[in-house]
Amino acid sequence: MIGPSLMCADLGRLIESVQILNQGNVDFFHFDIMDGSFVPNFSMGPDMLKTLRPHTSKPFDVHLMVEEPERFIDMFADAGANMISVHAESKIHLQRVLQSIRDRNLQAGIALNPSTPLCILDYVMDTVDYVCLMTVNPGFAGQKFIPSTLGKIADLRQKINASNMDISIQVDGNISLAAIPQVMEKGADMLVCGTSSLFMRGVRLEQAVADLREYCHK
Amino acid sequence: MIGPSLMCADLGRLIESVQILNQGNVDFFHFDIMDGSFVPNFSMGPDMLKTLRPHTSKPFDVHLMVEEPERFIDMFADAGANMISVHAESKIHLQRVLQSIRDRNLQAGIALNPSTPLCILDYVMDTVDYVCLMTVNPGFAGQKFIPSTLGKIADLRQKINASNMDISIQVDGNISLAAIPQVMEKGADMLVCGTSSLFMRGVRLEQAVADLREYCHK
Amino acid sequence: MIGPSLMCADLGRLIESVQILNQGNVDFFHFDIMDGSFVPNFSMGPDMLKTLRPHTSKPFDVHLMVEEPERFIDMFADAGANMISVHAESKIHLQRVLQSIRDRNLQAGIALNPSTPLCILDYVMDTVDYVCLMTVNPGFAGQKFIPSTLGKIADLRQKINASNMDISIQVDGNISLAAIPQVMEKGADMLVCGTSSLFMRGVRLEQAVADLREYCHK
Amino acid sequence: MIGPSLMCADLGRLIESVQILNQGNVDFFHFDIMDGSFVPNFSMGPDMLKTLRPHTSKPFDVHLMVEEPERFIDMFADAGANMISVHAESKIHLQRVLQSIRDRNLQAGIALNPSTPLCILDYVMDTVDYVCLMTVNPGFAGQKFIPSTLGKIADLRQKINASNMDISIQVDGNISLAAIPQVMEKGADMLVCGTSSLFMRGVRLEQAVADLREYCHK
Amino acid sequence: MIGPSLMCADLGRLIESVQILNQGNVDFFHFDIMDGSFVPNFSMGPDMLKTLRPHTSKPFDVHLMVEEPERFIDMFADAGANMISVHAESKIHLQRVLQSIRDRNLQAGIALNPSTPLCILDYVMDTVDYVCLMTVNPGFAGQKFIPSTLGKIADLRQKINASNMDISIQVDGNISLAAIPQVMEKGADMLVCGTSSLFMRGVRLEQAVADLREYCHK
Amino acid sequence: MIGPSLMCADLGRLIESVQILNQGNVDFFHFDIMDGSFVPNFSMGPDMLKTLRPHTSKPFDVHLMVEEPERFIDMFADAGANMISVHAESKIHLQRVLQSIRDRNLQAGIALNPSTPLCILDYVMDTVDYVCLMTVNPGFAGQKFIPSTLGKIADLRQKINASNMDISIQVDGNISLAAIPQVMEKGADMLVCGTSSLFMRGVRLEQAVADLREYCHK
Repeated sequence: MIGPSLMCADLGRLIESVQILNQGNVDFFHFDIMDGSFVPNFSMGPDMLKTLRPHTSKPFDVHLMVEEPERFIDMFADAGANMISVHAESKIHLQRVLQSIRDRNLQAGIALNPSTPLCILDYVMDTVDYVCLMTVNPGFAGQKFIPSTLGKIADLRQKINASNMDISIQVDGNISLAAIPQVMEKGADMLVCGTSSLFMRGVRLEQAVADLREYCHK
Repeated sequence: MIGPSLMCADLGRLIESVQILNQGNVDFFHFDIMDGSFVPNFSMGPDMLKTLRPHTSKPFDVHLMVEEPERFIDMFADAGANMISVHAESKIHLQRVLQSIRDRNLQAGIALNPSTPLCILDYVMDTVDYVCLMTVNPGFAGQKFIPSTLGKIADLRQKINASNMDISIQVDGNISLAAIPQVMEKGADMLVCGTSSLFMRGVRLEQAVADLREYCHK
Repeated sequence: MIGPSLMCADLGRLIESVQILNQGNVDFFHFDIMDGSFVPNFSMGPDMLKTLRPHTSKPFDVHLMVEEPERFIDMFADAGANMISVHAESKIHLQRVLQSIRDRNLQAGIALNPSTPLCILDYVMDTVDYVCLMTVNPGFAGQKFIPSTLGKIADLRQKINASNMDISIQVDGNISLAAIPQVMEKGADMLVCGTSSLFMRGVRLEQAVADLREYCHK
Repeated sequence: MIGPSLMCADLGRLIESVQILNQGNVDFFHFDIMDGSFVPNFSMGPDMLKTLRPHTSKPFDVHLMVEEPERFIDMFADAGANMISVHAESKIHLQRVLQSIRDRNLQAGIALNPSTPLCILDYVMDTVDYVCLMTVNPGFAGQKFIPSTLGKIADLRQKINASNMDISIQVDGNISLAAIPQVMEKGADMLVCGTSSLFMRGVRLEQAVADLREYCHK
Repeated sequence: MIGPSLMCADLGRLIESVQILNQGNVDFFHFDIMDGSFVPNFSMGPDMLKTLRPHTSKPFDVHLMVEEPERFIDMFADAGANMISVHAESKIHLQRVLQSIRDRNLQAGIALNPSTPLCILDYVMDTVDYVCLMTVNPGFAGQKFIPSTLGKIADLRQKINASNMDISIQVDGNISLAAIPQVMEKGADMLVCGTSSLFMRGVRLEQAVADLREYCHK
Repeated sequence: MIGPSLMCADLGRLIESVQILNQGNVDFFHFDIMDGSFVPNFSMGPDMLKTLRPHTSKPFDVHLMVEEPERFIDMFADAGANMISVHAESKIHLQRVLQSIRDRNLQAGIALNPSTPLCILDYVMDTVDYVCLMTVNPGFAGQKFIPSTLGKIADLRQKINASNMDISIQVDGNISLAAIPQVMEKGADMLVCGTSSLFMRGVRLEQAVADLREYCHK
C-alpha cells in the first residue's frame, strides 16, 4: 500500500493534488501533525483534513508527532481521520490511547523513532493495527534514510509473525524508489511516500503516481 | 490596514486565495501558528509561508501561539516572514525575543490574551512595533467577540500615545463588519480579518475583499 | 458568608461533619483540590463531592490549586460543584476558563497567591463572580496568616467598587477568630474557615459552628 | 493477600469502613494518589493516611500515580505508609526512588501500566519488593479488565522465579471475583480489591470481605 | 556596594581571584546559577561556594536563574550563601520562596528580567531585602546594556521610597564604568561587576578592583 | 583508559589540577553538566571547558545530565569538547542527537542510569562510540557504588561483542580502587575517576594519579 505524505505536496494547491493522487489510486493519505515540542516544526491541523475530506474516499492516516496525543484523538476523528498513529516516546498511556482510537472505530497505530526498541510493543500487540517505523528522525522532509532501520523492519516482521496478529508495518522517512524494494523485502507493507518517490521536482504528479503504482506492483 | 487570517481561507486552494487577496490590495497576510500546548489546536507551519511567498510581495505576519517562541524566530524569518508576534503569556524572555525578531530586520509584535493586563508592556514599549490584542481567546476560528476588549483597545491607545512611540494596535478575533468601526474608533489600526468579514459563506472572495477595502476607507 | 474548608475536617467521618455543618447553617462548603505540582501536596478529588452531595444542598465551592485547570472544569461541574475558582498563576487562559465555568452555570472565581498583583484582574472584572485572596501560601493547613494581605483586601475592595461590578471577596488561609473582624472590615465577605476557627482541637463541631455563626453576625 | 482500594470505599465514612475491613482481616490497605497529570484525576492525600492510621495496624500501601514521585516519599512515609509503589513510566530515577523508599524502612514497589514492557525491571530486581501490574489503565475506578495482562502476569512470575528474588506480584484494576482465580493462577499474590469484589452495590461490607476472604482461601 | 560576578572571573584560578578581590575590599561576591531552561546556559553550582567560602568572609550572593527555585534554597544556604535572589518570572510561589530564604536567616532578593513590570512587587515589599534589576537578558556575559532599564531603576527607587521600606536595588548586566554613574544616579546601590568594569582584558585584577573602588567613592 | 571527573577536583585551582593530571598522563577529562531538573544539582558550564582547553590536549568528555540535550551540542562542541554523552532517559530523540554529535566530528556517547535496560541500545549500536554506565544515580559525588551494575557491565560487553561494533564502556560513579579490577574484569574500559580513586583527602594529586596509572597497568 502506498500513501502520499501531504506535507510534501504543493501546499498551495492541495485539493488539486489530492484529486490527482486519488485518481492515481493511492491507498491512503498521510497527514503529519507536529507540535513544535515532540518535533521542532509545525505543519498542518485538523482543518486541513476537513478541507480535503470531500475530495476523496481513501483513508486519511494521521501521524501525531505530538506530546500527550490523547488530547487530540477526538479532534482528528471528528475531522475525518480513519487511522491515527501516536508516538510511543511521547508522554502517553499507550494502551489507553490505542484503545481510545479503536473506540472511535479507527485503526490504531504506534509510531516509533529510529532508536526506539521493539520491546515497547510486547503488551500492545493485540491493541494495534499498524506500526509506523520511522526511517528518519521525525520532523522534517528531505532527511537521509537511516540504514540500520532495515534490520528493524525485519525484526518487527518476525515479531508480528510470532504473535499471529494481523499488524501492518508502515515505513515513513525518505522512502525513495531505491529504498522501496528493500523495505518491502524486509516486511514493510505500507509506504509513506514523499519528496523522493512521489513529489519529485520536474516530474508531473500524474506521472509520478502512475510510475510508483506500477513500481510497487499493487 | 487589513490582513486576511489565512487559517480561515480555503486551505485546499491557498495560492488562488492569496492571489485574489493580493489583487484586492490587502495590507498584510496573517499566519496563525499553533503548538497544541499554548493553544489546543494545530494549523500550519513554515512550509506554508515558503509555498505562498512567491505569490505576493505583501508583508507576511506570523502570530506564534506557541510556548518558548524564541526557538522558532529564525525558522519563520527564513521562511519569509516580515512581522512576527509572540505571546507575553507563553514561556518567554520577552525583551530578548523581541530584540531577536528585530535583529532579523522584522517587525516585532507582542500578542496579548483577552485577560492579560497592559502593565506587561511597561518596559518594552521601545522594543515593540505592534501589539496584537486578542479579542477572542486564541486557538479557534468562529468564536464570539469579547466586548470588554473594546475598553482595552482604548487603554492601549492611550498608553501608546503617552509613550510617544510609534506602535500599531492589531486586533485579532471575530473582527466582523459590525465590530470594525468600533475597534477602529477605539484606536486599532491593523485588522486581522477572518470568517466574519472576509471569508464568509456565500460571498465570492473577490467581492468580499473589495467590499471590506471600501468599508475600511483605506 | 462562612464556609468550612473540608480538608481541615475529620476526613474519616466526612458525612457526619457535613451534616453537622449543614445544620449549623454554613453558607458553602470549600473543597481544596491539589495536584502536587502547583502546590506540593494532595488532598481530595471529584468522588468526594459526589459522596457528600446528597447530604446538603448548600453550594459546593471548588478551589483548584492545579496547573491547567481548564482540563478539570467539567469533571467538577459533573461531580456537583456550584462554584469553581482557578489560580491566575497557573498555566491558564484566564478569560477562557472563567467563561467555561460560567457556561456550566456555575460561579466563576479567581484565586490569587499572596504575592500576585491585582492588575491581573484588570480585564476580567466582568467575567468573575468572586476573587479568592490567599492569606497564606496555598498547599497546607495550619500556616501563619500573612499580614500584608490585609492591605490587599482593601485594595481589591476599592477596585471592585470602582468597577461597579458585583464581585465577592473570599479569603482563604488561617482565617482565625482574631483575623475575621480584620478581614471583614477591609472588605472580605466570604470566609474559608479551617483549623483556627471551626475545626479546633477540643471544641465540638456543633458548638464551633454555632459560635462562629454568631461571631460573624450572619 | 487481599487489600481494599480505599478510593472505592465510602469516602464519607472511611473510619467505619476501615474498621470493618480490619476486622474482616484484609492484608493491607491500598491508597491511590493521583496528580491530575500522570493520571487525569484526583483522589486523596497524606492527611487521609494520618486520619486512618490509628484505626488499624495493617500495612498501608501507597500507589503514587504521580510525576516525579521522589518528591513525595518522605511525605507519605511520615503519614504512615508501609509500602510505596511508583510508576516506572513517570519522570523518575527508578533505582534512586526505590532505594529512598527502602531507606525509610518501607517496602518498595514498581507500578507498571498495561503497555509497559517487563525489561524495565532488568536491573532493579534486587531493589524492589513488589511489582504492581496495572490490569486497567490507571486513573479511574470501574474500567474493564485488559485480558492481555494475564500473559504479562505469567511472564513476570517467570522472570521473578528466574531471578531467585522474593518479589510479590500485585494486580490492580477491576480484580473481580471472576478474575481472581485467573490472576492467582498466573502468579499474582497481592490483589487490590475495589468495586468488583469488595465494594459492590447491595452487599454489606462485612459480608463482602468475609466472602472474599474465604474465596481466596487465605 | 560593588560585587564581582564570579562567572566573569578566571574560572581556572578562582581562589586566587577571590583573594585579590577580598583584599580589594569588594562588598559581596555574586554567583550566577543557571539551569539550561530558565536561561539557555550553565555556569556553576553549590560546590563552588563551598570551595571559596573559606577564602573570604564577605557575603556570598546567589542569583538563581532557574525554574522552581524553591527546590534549591537549602542547598545554597548550606553551601554558604548569605543572600539569594530568585526570578519572579520562573515557576514560583514568590512570597513562599522569599519567606523560606529569610527563614534561613539570609537576605531575600527578587530578580527581574528587563521586560518584567514592577507591579509584580506590589505585595512583597515587606518580604524582600533587595531587587536585582537585570539590565541585560540573563544567561550570558558580554551582552549590550538595555537603555530603557535606566528608567526602570528610577521607577523602582520611587516605589521603594513610597513604601518606606529598606530595599536595595541591585543592577546586573554590563554595568560598565560608563554605566555606573548613570545607574547610581537613578537609585541603584548594589552593582554586579563583570567583564566591563572588573574583569577586563589587559588590566590586572588588583588594579581593576582598586580603580573601581575609588571610582564608586565607597 | 582513566579520566578524572573534574567536579571532584579542587574547583578553586582547576588549571593547576588539570596541569598535574595532564602530566600524570590521564586519558581524558570528564565534565559533568547538570541542569537541576534531570538531576537535582548544578556544577559547571561551557566556560569551564574554554578556560581549561589551553592547558591540555587530552580529550574533553562532556557528560550531559540534562533534559533535551540536543539544545546544547553546539555549545559544548564550540567550547572544546571531543566527546559528548547524553542520557537515554532524558527528553530526547536519541538517534538524532547522537548523529548531531558525530556531525560535529565528536565521539557520541549514551549515558544510562543504573535502572535503565540495555534494550534501549538495540537500534543505535552503529551510531554510538561509547556507553557510559552509571554505577551510582547521577547528580552527586560520594555516593555508594550499586553492586548490581557489575552484571550490567558484563551484559553490555556481551551485547557489544555480539554486534561486532567498536564501542567503549565507560563507568561512572564511585569507581574506587577496590571497584576498578571488578569493573575492568566485567568489560569496562573507560574509568571516570573521582573522590574514591584520584581526589582523595590526604593524598597529593601527583601521587594519586601516578598510583592510579600504575594500578590500571596502562
